[in-house]
Amino acid sequence: MSTIIIDVMPKRELLDPAGKAVHRALQQDGHSDIAAVRIGKRFELTIDGDVTEVHLEKARALADDLLSNGVIEDVVAIRVEDTP
Amino acid sequence: MSTIIIDVMPKRELLDPAGKAVHRALQQDGHSDIAAVRIGKRFELTIDGDVTEVHLEKARALADDLLSNGVIEDVVAIRVEDTP
Repeated sequence: MSTIIIDVMPKRELLDPAGKAVHRALQQDGHSDIAAVRIGKRFELTIDGDVTEVHLEKARALADDLLSNGVIEDVVAIRVEDTP
Repeated sequence: MSTIIIDVMPKRELLDPAGKAVHRALQQDGHSDIAAVRIGKRFELTIDGDVTEVHLEKARALADDLLSNGVIEDVVAIRVEDTP
């Protein structure tokens, strides 16, 4: 079995309230060297057998159409890893 | 600037309702070759300047203590990328 990992993040130009909240907490804890925090989603699609180019094409389409909201999010990475 | 990326996933042995819901939707759409879907979080910590081993140690501690709930989640990856 293999796993396709799809990373989705809020668009950089948009406000990320959750990220801002975590960043403020870190600042208050004295972590001033952390300039910003952004929070997104990580999807793991487990595929029976090996991942083929057909699977990757499908994953790209699903990432754009179903797993992210193109108005407020970007698909920032799609990669393959062996399922542990 | 550099970015430390921290991936947090639900523990494998726990139910992942969101992942199950997406998987069911994919099955209904005919994507029967996708055996499972799991959904987690991706944190991006932006660091002023280059990431040092001190930053990585701090990121590991923050990942365990603040950014994940050790009872229900695992920190599955911590890596460094250049900030786009």
